[in-house]
Formats: sequence, structure tokens, C-alpha cells
Amino acid sequence: MSEVIEGRRARGGGAARRAERTAVSFETAKFITRNIPNFEVLNEEALQIIEYNAETVLEEIGVNFVENPAALDRWRAAGADVKGERVHIPRGLARKLCSTAPASFTQHARNPGRNVEIGGRNLVLAPVYGPPFVRDAEGGRRYATIEDFRNFVKLGYMSKWLHHSGGTVCEPTDVPVNKRHLDMLLAHMTLSDKPYMGSVTEPSRAADSVAMSKILFGDDFVDQNTVMTSLININSPLTFDGIMMGALEVYAAANQAAIISPFIVGGAMAPVTVAGTLTQVLAEVLAGVAYSQLVRAGAPVIAGAFVTSIDMNSGAPTFGTPEAAHITWGAGQLVRRLGLPYRSAGSFCGSKLPDAQAAYETANSLNMGLTAGVNFMLHACGWLEGGLVSSYEKFVMDADQLGTLHGLARGVAVDENAQAMDAIREVGPGGHYLGCAHTQANFKTAFWRTEVLDYKPFETWEEEGGRDTAQLASVRVKKMLADYVPPALDEAKREALDAFVAERKAEMPDAFI
Amino acid sequence: MSEVIEGRRARGGGAARRAERTAVSFETAKFITRNIPNFEVLNEEALQIIEYNAETVLEEIGVNFVENPAALDRWRAAGADVKGERVHIPRGLARKLCSTAPASFTQHARNPGRNVEIGGRNLVLAPVYGPPFVRDAEGGRRYATIEDFRNFVKLGYMSKWLHHSGGTVCEPTDVPVNKRHLDMLLAHMTLSDKPYMGSVTEPSRAADSVAMSKILFGDDFVDQNTVMTSLININSPLTFDGIMMGALEVYAAANQAAIISPFIVGGAMAPVTVAGTLTQVLAEVLAGVAYSQLVRAGAPVIAGAFVTSIDMNSGAPTFGTPEAAHITWGAGQLVRRLGLPYRSAGSFCGSKLPDAQAAYETANSLNMGLTAGVNFMLHACGWLEGGLVSSYEKFVMDADQLGTLHGLARGVAVDENAQAMDAIREVGPGGHYLGCAHTQANFKTAFWRTEVLDYKPFETWEEEGGRDTAQLASVRVKKMLADYVPPALDEAKREALDAFVAERKAEMPDAFI
Repeated sequence: MSEVIEGRRARGGGAARRAERTAVSFETAKFITRNIPNFEVLNEEALQIIEYNAETVLEEIGVNFVENPAALDRWRAAGADVKGERVHIPRGLARKLCSTAPASFTQHARNPGRNVEIGGRNLVLAPVYGPPFVRDAEGGRRYATIEDFRNFVKLGYMSKWLHHSGGTVCEPTDVPVNKRHLDMLLAHMTLSDKPYMGSVTEPSRAADSVAMSKILFGDDFVDQNTVMTSLININSPLTFDGIMMGALEVYAAANQAAIISPFIVGGAMAPVTVAGTLTQVLAEVLAGVAYSQLVRAGAPVIAGAFVTSIDMNSGAPTFGTPEAAHITWGAGQLVRRLGLPYRSAGSFCGSKLPDAQAAYETANSLNMGLTAGVNFMLHACGWLEGGLVSSYEKFVMDADQLGTLHGLARGVAVDENAQAMDAIREVGPGGHYLGCAHTQANFKTAFWRTEVLDYKPFETWEEEGGRDTAQLASVRVKKMLADYVPPALDEAKREALDAFVAERKAEMPDAFI
Repeated sequence: MSEVIEGRRARGGGAARRAERTAVSFETAKFITRNIPNFEVLNEEALQIIEYNAETVLEEIGVNFVENPAALDRWRAAGADVKGERVHIPRGLARKLCSTAPASFTQHARNPGRNVEIGGRNLVLAPVYGPPFVRDAEGGRRYATIEDFRNFVKLGYMSKWLHHSGGTVCEPTDVPVNKRHLDMLLAHMTLSDKPYMGSVTEPSRAADSVAMSKILFGDDFVDQNTVMTSLININSPLTFDGIMMGALEVYAAANQAAIISPFIVGGAMAPVTVAGTLTQVLAEVLAGVAYSQLVRAGAPVIAGAFVTSIDMNSGAPTFGTPEAAHITWGAGQLVRRLGLPYRSAGSFCGSKLPDAQAAYETANSLNMGLTAGVNFMLHACGWLEGGLVSSYEKFVMDADQLGTLHGLARGVAVDENAQAMDAIREVGPGGHYLGCAHTQANFKTAFWRTEVLDYKPFETWEEEGGRDTAQLASVRVKKMLADYVPPALDEAKREALDAFVAERKAEMPDAFI
């Protein structure tokens, strides 16, 4: 070993290299393009049964579009049988309507180098979404504030393996509920130059998201391009509420992308069996995506499946379980047969701390998401305690692990260099490869490298305090936030965004529920 | 939720159910039979290139059989070109010799209900092997003793998802090195009734292992059946040392099984590229398995691949990395094309503590092992710090996670019950599934259930001390060891085993190196 390290020292200059190694990187990896197969857990017969049953659900049982007369009119006009708020969709109609949605689309970032292509063999990674609490080593668990929100946007911006700035990285509970979306969007737009998500909690907030995006990108650009991907949850089972659909209508009409996604705790919002859950998921996705296309044919959408299992003793959702894996793999197959981009998986865990439980569960889910052919992974880092908490430490721990997904997706090269026959000849039986020419030529890119985990000798690790992963991550969080430098932004745009936010806030009284 | 819990309380009796939930289980799950596909990362062209190159390595470069004239004679007789200790194996010869090894075999346990079938679509899980240190919450990191060894055998016996008692679950460093194998075998034979591994550190110790097995099973039974699977490591690159081969010769001659396995840190003992490493792994496995068949055609063997990546800064091995996954998946494909059982993956991690790093790395490796089609997974639980440490807490944490592999392997049922159409009809849009008949009928078996991880409400968890996974595992370790009851064993056999151990120990002076 020592030859290699000393050889490099002699040539390089140790201090510079050590600085390089500890410097926080602002580099962002390109979104993942898979060069590995998808894992397929359902055979053709199973797929056909589930697809047939999903159509039966839509036709016979139907779905509810609640408090949304315009939606009922659209469905009626499309040929559905509408009774009250219940929409019965004839077999085949929803699938036919889905066919106008693009198989893949570009979401533009204000830094064009960070545009993402959503669909096909690509995987775009975005951070945790929605927690009302945050946790870190010093402050423990507490309600999230706009300061926390900004910190998570900064961490996301600086995370090499994260392609997307996300949306509600935590709920800024110190800002009135009717004004939060303005501060959140402003943070994504100014503190990061990665693509972001819009607000969905009211149609008017979706409209504000579009308006702010037009300031950032220009009116024409937003009319002609997708600059937001927003999260539209279905109220499982089989219910589409007026507020979420109202936001979807705003985005679809503006040609902005939406993830249309059931949010299911299996056994509570869907049957307790995998095949039953997949049936319901498919029915819901078909109805939701079809509806987006009724609003505007060709609007970009992502078919989602947020599905987890349940602890039947406590009723608590459970994560990283085999049943969740089966559903994520199976839903991927069903969505690919629909020809749509697919959203699922994430850094899911039930643990209260960024500990071993959190990591087992998260690793299970991340690996399953990659092999399931997910195209957009929301919650890819930072999720804790069943989604109640955004964890600072877990954010950087998970973000580091996302590097492994990039490595896995590369697949296996078999060109002449990769075959390494000359190296095997050079080293021969009983030799070692550390100093050989092939190793020297390839070692910098051969292996994924962590920026969080510890591989030091035991004695060194002990001398440095015997820190666990969360403690190492805590150091990295502080360093990243201290080193943060915002991306450049045109001053006039910045002022216009500030003015828009100030004006909209002045128009509304504060609301906290 | 409350209906279900109260309904069950009213019917069941809460105290009994709570007792059932906290009782330590002595049940052992049947070995896994996969009902899911294997993940294949290499295409046909890549497989053929690697197979061709491996034969080139064997023919042109050759392998060393060190300090083993009998082996050289066997190779010469088989048609190899032997120069000094270097054996050049003509293209195709090793593969042909491998064809007499069985694709699958039964390893018998003294409790026939715990026999395991190694090969085909099966996966047998065995605990950590080899660490000189142990770690637990109270005692920290320390040299392992025979007391620790016995404790790990007890924990393995009581772990539901572990099918195999393993071998050197830790090194009992307080017993002379030339006598350890006797105490270790005695522990496996008396404290557990699961299948076990034999000693490989000297041919005479392999012979002792066979002799003790004959006492336990009877002479005739051992002659006619496989009752041990032992670990024969290859000295990569391309070297087969006399001691390990001597042990292999003893086992093959006695029709006992051997795992023939390169032990490779990529970039050190093999090329830094995945395809190059796979080439060397295949060449080594071909030569080793072929040699076992030269000793006794038809002897049961498992083709192994212990391969991990390296941190090129420190030279430390790294675990749960993408490169290790590629190799594990690829080697699985190559071994299946040889028609042999496959050993790889495990609870690998570089972390010093049973923390998040340990769990990310372990989960990555376990999931990869399952999807790679591994048939025998050594180190499936308890491995810590790059294999230097057997961790009490991680043993039970990992053993719990092994339950997820069982769940994943089941695949997805699509029978009428699984389709759950009546449940979807019964609940309908906006309802919930917790109380419905289908949920009631299926919830007990629908979801994998942890015995370690925490899914309690935050407030309860906090009141109970806000414990992390390692602390919860520590409680479970103590409870398991306190609850341990040895399996019944015929008194005469027990006395004969004790007498054999005493006699062999008396014959030898103590040796500590």
C-alpha cells in the first residue's frame, strides 16, 4: 500500500491533495442514465391480471372527483359515466387518454447545465419533501422554520449527487401557511440553480409558482418549456380532491409537469396484499394521468407510486420492507407499459434517529428504486421518522449514498482496458496489483468514493473521537453551510422576485391553518 | 386503527399477545427458495469475453499450487502443463473437470428439520466468520474468547432467519491455536442443532472435524452424506496454498462440501476493474473446483466470490459499494453458467460501530446477494469493521434484516385472495381498509415484521429513553442469551465428543501462533 500513497505524495504535494479531499464540492453529477436492466418481479400473466383488474375498478367501482364540477364535466365529455361525484371510466378509456402524455420530458433549470431529462432510462434525484419538523445533532427535534428551509436548499445545491432542488424540503412553520409557498420558491430560485418544484396546496399558489417562474425564466420560455415538476397526491383509495386537482389543472394548462401519485400505506389506504395494492395504484394513476390529459393533451406527467407497508400492531407505516419493494418493482413494470415516466422510492425510514435502522431502511428503498426503473426519486435524501422530520445529518449521509446509485447504474464495461488482461499477465500468481500500470491508470475513477463514511484504521478513528456516522455527518453539515456560496443571479430578476413576493404577501392576511 | 387493535384486544387478550410479541423465538425459517428472478448485469457478449479470458489466464499464465507435490501430480495426470509449481491448464479442461461437481446438494444437520439444500434457487444464510475481536455495548472492542464464541453460536441457534450455525463465528483467542477447532466444533455440535462448518486451518484439523462429525452423526452417515460445508480460500491472485488445499483434500475425499472462494480486495489482489476482477475470479474458481474434482469426482463444492473494493487513499477495503455489487451480480451469472452453487455477499461493512454506515453497507450487500442468486451467504450477520470484529448488537440487527430477504424472495402472489378485488369493492373510494374482511383475514402474514426496529410513536419512544438501534439490539442480545435453552442431545454422543476433544488436546502441546 505504502508505495502508492508515497508515490502520489512525492509527485503531487500532500497538502494540496488533502485540501482537495476535504473541500466541499459544488460539482453536480449529471442525472443518472441506467446502463443496467430493470428488475422485474411480475410475469406477463401477473401484469395482465393486474391491468385487467385496474380497468374493472375504474369501470365498475369508479373514482371520486370531489368538489370539482369542472372535472366531472370533462369526464362526461370524454365518455365516462358520471353519477354524483363518482366517475365510472369505461374499460380502455383511461389508458387511451394517457397515451397523449410524453414518455419523457426535459425540466429546465435556470442553469441549463442542470436541466434534467425525466423518463426513459434516466433517474433524477430530489430531496425530502414535506416534514413539519427538523432534527440535528445540537438542536434535536423541533418545528421547522424558513431558516431551516433555506439551509436544506443550500445543502441540496451543494450535494453532488442531487440533481434537483425539490420542493417543500421542510415546512417553514414560522411563516403563515398562505404565504409559505412564496418564501419557499424564492429560496429555491435564489439559493440554488437546480430545477425545483411548485406549490400544490391551493390552485392560487400554483398560479403564484407559475408567475414567479415567469419572472425567473421569462414568459415565453415558461409557455414553451417545463420549468417545474410538482407533486399531486391522490387521496387513496380512489379519490381526487378539488384542491389538488385544482393545482394540477393550473400546472397542466401551463404545460408544467406534475407527479400524479397515490400516497398509500398498504393495509390502510389499499388492500393488504401486493397484487391488490398494485391494482388500486394502477387504477388511480390511470385516472389521474388521464385527467391531466383532459385538461391539456400532451401535458408532462410522471406516474407515481408512494406505497409503504404498515405495522399491524401499531398502525405505523413501515419502510424498506419486502412488501414495499414488491410494489415499487411491480409498479415500475406497470408504468413502463403505460409509456410514462415513473416516480417512486426514496430515503424512507421509520427511525427517530439517523441510526442503523434509518440506514437499513433507506438503503433497501434506494436500491429498490434504482432497480425498479424509477425516473424521478423524490425524498432521495434527508427523510426521517416516517416523513415527519427532515434530518440535517441524514440529508448529507443519504446524499453521499446516492453516489452508489450513480456507480451501480454505470453497469460493467468490457472494453480492452476493463478486461485488464495485461495487468493479470504483469502481476501473475502471488503478486499484487497496487503498483501495476493498469491500477495506476485507473484507480482514480475505478471506485465510488464516500465523503462521509469512515475507512480509517481503528486506532486513528479512535484517536479522533470514535465518532459514529451521524457525528461525522454533523461535521460535514456545518462545513457545507459555512462554505456555501450562492449561484450568480441577475440582479433585476432578483429584485423582481422580491417585489412579487412582497406584493403578494401584502395582499393577504396571515393564515396559520 | 383503533377498531382493529381494540377488536383484537377484545378477542385475544392483550397480555398474552404482548408476551408472544416479546418472547424470543426458537423457530427457524426454512432456507430461502427464490420466487424472484436473478439480476443480470452482464450481457451474453460480456459473459463470453470474460469466460474466454479466464481460460486464457489458466492456459497462458497458469496458477500456482504451492508446497503440494501431490496436487501437481494430479494436474499432470489430468493433462495440465506443470512447470515447477505453476500449473497451466489447457483451454476447456478446468470447465470439463468442474462438470462432475453437483449443481445442488443437501447439507445435513443433526436436527433433520434443519437440513439445508445448497444450490438451485435456494439461499442458505450463515453468520459472520473469522473476526479476532468482538464488540458489544458494555465491553467495547476486545479480543474474542471461547465464551464469546459460544454466545454467538447461541445467538445463531436462536435467530429465526439464520439457517446455518456457521464456523469461526469469532476467533477464540484464549484457546491455543492448535486446539481451538475442537472447542469450536464442540460448541456448534452441542449448543446448536443447525448445520455447521469444519476447520480448514490445517489438514489434521479438517480430519478432526470429520472424526467429530462421525461421532455426532455416525460413521456410515458421514460416509454417505454431507454434514459439513467448509471455507477454502484461494490466495489471490491465482495461488492455491498447501494448507488450504490440504484441508480441501480431506473434505473432498470424505465427500464433505467446500466453498472454494477467492478472497479479493479489488485493486490489490485483482485488477482495479470489474471485468478484470471477474476474469480472475472465474479463473481461480475454475482451477479450484476442478482440483476438488481431481481429488474426488462428484465431491460437493460451492463456487465462491468474496470480492470487495478498496479505498485508494488508505488502502482499506470498502463495502457495500457499486463495484462490489457489479462483481457479485456478474460472478453469479458466471457461476450459474458453470452449473455450480454460488457463495457471495454478507453483512459486510467497514464501520467501527453498528451505526448508519454499517447498516447502509450491509443492506447494500444483502440486497445484492439476494438478487445475485447467491446460494450460500456466509457472514450474513454480525460482521463489523472490515471483518475484524464480530458485533453482538449487529448480529441481532442483521439477523432481523435477514427476514426481509425471505420476504423479498417470496415474490408476488396473484391468486384470487391476493388480487383483493372484493376488498376494493367493499371499501370503495374514500373508505379505509383497516377493518375490512380481507385485511382481517390476511394481516398476520401480509407484512414482514421486525423484532428489533422501532415503529412506536415519537412520544412513547422518547419516554422509553430515545434509544437508537444499537441500544435496542443490546437489550435483545441480553434477552436472547438469558432465554437460551440448548437443543436436546443424546448423552452418550455428548460424552464421546467431550472425550474426543480431551484426548486430542492431551496429545498436543499448546501453540499460540
